[in-house]
Amino acid sequence: MTDGCEWVVDARGCDPVRLADLDTLRGLFSAILGELCLTPVANAVWHVFPSPGGITGLVPLAESHLTIHTFPEHGSACINLFCCRPRADWPWVERLSESLGADRVEVQRLDRRYAAPNPMSAVAALATRHSPLGA
Amino acid sequence: MTDGCEWVVDARGCDPVRLADLDTLRGLFSAILGELCLTPVANAVWHVFPSPGGITGLVPLAESHLTIHTFPEHGSACINLFCCRPRADWPWVERLSESLGADRVEVQRLDRRYAAPNPMSAVAALATRHSPLGA
Repeated sequence: MTDGCEWVVDARGCDPVRLADLDTLRGLFSAILGELCLTPVANAVWHVFPSPGGITGLVPLAESHLTIHTFPEHGSACINLFCCRPRADWPWVERLSESLGADRVEVQRLDRRYAAPNPMSAVAALATRHSPLGA
Repeated sequence: MTDGCEWVVDARGCDPVRLADLDTLRGLFSAILGELCLTPVANAVWHVFPSPGGITGLVPLAESHLTIHTFPEHGSACINLFCCRPRADWPWVERLSESLGADRVEVQRLDRRYAAPNPMSAVAALATRHSPLGA
């Protein structure tokens, strides 16, 4: 039975200037994607909010998704990385300290249970429903 | 101190045909956004994978983000809804039963702790760093 995992990461005590800098966040995404060998299936979506300039970024992956929200007024960032196949842990604490100046990083790793006990039953149902001859 | 919340929702026993149907998932997103009064800040990104036709959807919100991944071969879907301001619970179990035919829905509600104990210190740091006269 294959299942996925999700890292839920909250970083605090960050440098507010870097949290409001799009290039910094693009670089952080590139590092995560590159070092974990993740594959975007579309361009990332970035949205910069009015002052104090929080930024949201989302990218859909072959392996699921990566998102970030930054809150310069609080010196914080919230990241989600969902992988439908298990991956090694990324060094979140060290990397977010380097890239955002975080002094406190909370990392939760969740199991995402999407796999059916008997996936063939779902596949059979899909094939039946898609077939013009299906009952 | 204001903080956010995130719903991590895994639905199983779903109808695989509906999981592979983009209109069904667009309708589900519309229902969630409309009923919770959430505000997209860009168009949703949708990606349909090759057979068995799982679908990924992501939409950035003024309130953070909504994502879905469907796995027709497993009869399952994984949803995240992150709101940087508290919201009432959505009736995930009932709605995912209606829209996707789910017979089992696991809902986790996580606190996302992004608020600084003293947000003014971060704002002051940001103002100082942005000012041409800042030290």
